[in-house]
Amino acid sequence: MRVQVVIIGSGPSGLLLGQLLGNAGIETAILDRSSRAHILGRVRAGVLEEGTVALLDKAGVGARMHAEGLPHDGFSLAFDGRDHRIDLFDLTGGKRVMVYGQTELTRDLIEQREADGRLTIHEAANVTPCAFDGAAPYVTYEKDGATHRIDCDFIAGCDGFHGASRKAVPEQAIRTFEKVYPFGWLGLLAEVPPVSDELVYANHPRGFALCSMRSPTRSRYYLQCALDERIEAWSDARFWDELRRRLPAHHGEALVTGPSFETSIAPLRSFVAEPMRFGRLFLVGDAAHIVPPTGAKGLNLAASDVHYLFSGLLEHYRERSGAGLNAYSTRALARVWKAVRFSWWMTSMLHRFPGTGDFDQKIQEAELDYLTHSRAAETVLAENYVGLPY
Amino acid sequence: MRVQVVIIGSGPSGLLLGQLLGNAGIETAILDRSSRAHILGRVRAGVLEEGTVALLDKAGVGARMHAEGLPHDGFSLAFDGRDHRIDLFDLTGGKRVMVYGQTELTRDLIEQREADGRLTIHEAANVTPCAFDGAAPYVTYEKDGATHRIDCDFIAGCDGFHGASRKAVPEQAIRTFEKVYPFGWLGLLAEVPPVSDELVYANHPRGFALCSMRSPTRSRYYLQCALDERIEAWSDARFWDELRRRLPAHHGEALVTGPSFETSIAPLRSFVAEPMRFGRLFLVGDAAHIVPPTGAKGLNLAASDVHYLFSGLLEHYRERSGAGLNAYSTRALARVWKAVRFSWWMTSMLHRFPGTGDFDQKIQEAELDYLTHSRAAETVLAENYVGLPY
Repeated sequence: MRVQVVIIGSGPSGLLLGQLLGNAGIETAILDRSSRAHILGRVRAGVLEEGTVALLDKAGVGARMHAEGLPHDGFSLAFDGRDHRIDLFDLTGGKRVMVYGQTELTRDLIEQREADGRLTIHEAANVTPCAFDGAAPYVTYEKDGATHRIDCDFIAGCDGFHGASRKAVPEQAIRTFEKVYPFGWLGLLAEVPPVSDELVYANHPRGFALCSMRSPTRSRYYLQCALDERIEAWSDARFWDELRRRLPAHHGEALVTGPSFETSIAPLRSFVAEPMRFGRLFLVGDAAHIVPPTGAKGLNLAASDVHYLFSGLLEHYRERSGAGLNAYSTRALARVWKAVRFSWWMTSMLHRFPGTGDFDQKIQEAELDYLTHSRAAETVLAENYVGLPY
Repeated sequence: MRVQVVIIGSGPSGLLLGQLLGNAGIETAILDRSSRAHILGRVRAGVLEEGTVALLDKAGVGARMHAEGLPHDGFSLAFDGRDHRIDLFDLTGGKRVMVYGQTELTRDLIEQREADGRLTIHEAANVTPCAFDGAAPYVTYEKDGATHRIDCDFIAGCDGFHGASRKAVPEQAIRTFEKVYPFGWLGLLAEVPPVSDELVYANHPRGFALCSMRSPTRSRYYLQCALDERIEAWSDARFWDELRRRLPAHHGEALVTGPSFETSIAPLRSFVAEPMRFGRLFLVGDAAHIVPPTGAKGLNLAASDVHYLFSGLLEHYRERSGAGLNAYSTRALARVWKAVRFSWWMTSMLHRFPGTGDFDQKIQEAELDYLTHSRAAETVLAENYVGLPY
C-alpha cells in the first residue's frame, strides 16, 4: 500500500493533521497501537487556545465544540486567602480560551474521519518508521499475525512521549532537554458542578490546587502532592478536605462534593527534543515535547506543530516548495520553547517547592504581589495563557 | 546634646533624609565613622529612577543633577549578536531614568548640608544606637579620645550593610533572607567616551557584560567573572579584549579603550532583613537590604525607604500621628521585595550560571526571545527599570 503521508498515532494531533490533509486532498493513513475504544476512554485536559479553536474550525470539526464547549474570558489566581481575577478578554484585546474536553475533541475528529471514509488502522503493533533519511520512507506494523508495510512520501510522528517515532531516530541525531519537578498532581473527576464558573489556580502554603471543569456538571480538581504519594491513601473525603483547605474561604464554602469516578497521580515534567525533523520524519506534539499541565499548553502546542507541518506539506504538494518543511523544526521549536518557559514559570510561581529556602518563597510572594498590581504583568500572563501567535 | 533625629551614616540615604527633615524644620545630627574625603572618594553606580529624581528635587538638591546628569530614554539588551532597544520612555508613557554618579549626588547633598549649617560628625568611632526599644533612645560614639552621647526621639540607621545599626538589633528580633550568586562583577572605570549613548546589557556565552557611563567622557564597564577571580590577573588590555568579545560586533568596533583609573571586583548578593523598624530605630537602604547591581535598584530603594520614613516622621511631628511610622516597615518592604525580585530576575536572565543545565540555558534564551517580541513583556521590564510607584 502507498499513501502520501503516514501518520503514527491517532490522538488529537494525528487526527487533526489527518483531517487538514484529507480536506486538502492529500491522502493519509493513520496507524495506532491502541483500539478505538481505548483512545476514546482517555481523560485529558481541555483548555483550548484561540489558535487551536481556529485550526479545528479550519479542519471543519468545530461544530460540537462551539455548541457544547465553555468559552472562558478569565481565570482566578487565589493566594493569601483571596481571589485575583485575570481578565483574559480585556487584557488581550478580546481573546478567550475554550474549555472543551480532549476526549470530546478526539471523538469529533474520529467521527469526522470515519464519515469521510479515511483510513485508520487500530491495534497496529510494532509500528516502525523506516528509511526516513532517504527519498522513499515507509512504515511497517504488525496486525492479525502478519507484517504490513505502507510506503509514503512523509511520516508524521504523532504518537506521544512514549511512542515509536522519536525512538526510531538515531540517538546521536537528537538532543534532549529535561526538567523533572519535585512533585506531582493528584487529580479527581466528579459529577458535581464546578466551584466557580472559571478556573481557579491556588497558591497555598499546603501546596498548589487547581479547580477546573469539563462541563457545567462535571468538575476536575487537582492537588499538588509528593512524588511518592500513593493514590490508595486518598479517599474522596480526604481529597475534598484537603482541597477545601487550599482554597480561599468563599470557594471552600461553595465547594460541592460528590463521589469521584476517576482519580490519578501524574508527575510534572518539561521535556524537549531537538530537532523535530529527521529527513522525511516529523515529530509532532508530545512525541517531541512535554510541558507540566499548569499552563494548559500540551494540546495547544501539538496544535501549533500541526499548523506548521500542515502548512509545510501543503507548500510541498501545491507549490513544489520545500521551504515550509525545511522551516518546520525551527518554527515549531521557537513557539515550543516559549510555551515551555511559560509553563515552567507558571508552575514555579504557583507550587510549593520542597527544600526551597525562604528567599525563594519570598520571591514567589513578591511575584504574585507584583503580578496583581501591574497591568503589564497581568498582560504577560494573559497573552501567554490564551496563546502566543503562530 | 539632644536632636530630634540621629542619622547614622552619611551616604546618600542618610544625607537625603537629613536634608528633607532639615527643610521641614526637624533637627538632625548625622554621624559617620568615615572622613568627608573618604565618603566623597567612593565610586558607585548612578542610574536614578524618576521617583528618586523627584525626591532629590523635593529636597532642593537637584540643580546640578539636572544640569550635568544624562536623562536616558532607553537601554539595550544585547544577545545573539544583536541589540534590542528597550524604549523606556515609550513603554512607560513618558518615564525615563537619570544617569548621575552617586559620588556627585553625595557631593551635592554634603555641600547643601554644609551650606545650611547642619551638624555632621565625621570620624565618629563605635557609633552605637541605644535604648531604642524605649521612649528615650540615644546614640553613643567615640571621637578625639572621648565618649559622646546624643539623645533623640528617633534613630535612622542609614549606615549600610556592614553598619552598626542592624547589628544593634537583638538577633531574635530580626529575620534575614539571603541569596548569593555564583559569580561577581569585574568593573573598570576609564576616561573614554562610552561605546553607546545608552546602557548596554549583554548576555553572551562567555558571560554577562554591562556598558555604562558616568558622563559623556567617562565610561564604566563590567564583566561577569568567577567568584575567585583575582583583579591582578586583569590587565587593561585583557579587560578590553574580553569586553569586545562579549558585545555585538558593531559595539566591539566602536569601543574606545584607554587606561583604567579604577578597577574592582564585587560579589553579587540579595539580602533582606525584616522588619525594618525596631521601636525607635529605623533601618534604611543597604542597612536593611542589598540587591545585585543588575537592575540598578540599590540607591533607588534607599531613596524610597527615605520617602516612607520622612513621611512617617513628618506625620509624627506635624500631626502627632504614629500611623506613618507604624506602617514604615510594611510599606518599605512591599516595595523592597518587588525590587529584589526584579533584580534577581534581571540577573538570572542575563548571566551565565556555572553548573546550570542545558534546560535552564534554553529557558533563558526563550525568555529573551519572548521579551523582545512582546510589548507586554517589554513593559514589565521597563516599568520595573524606571521604578514602580511609591
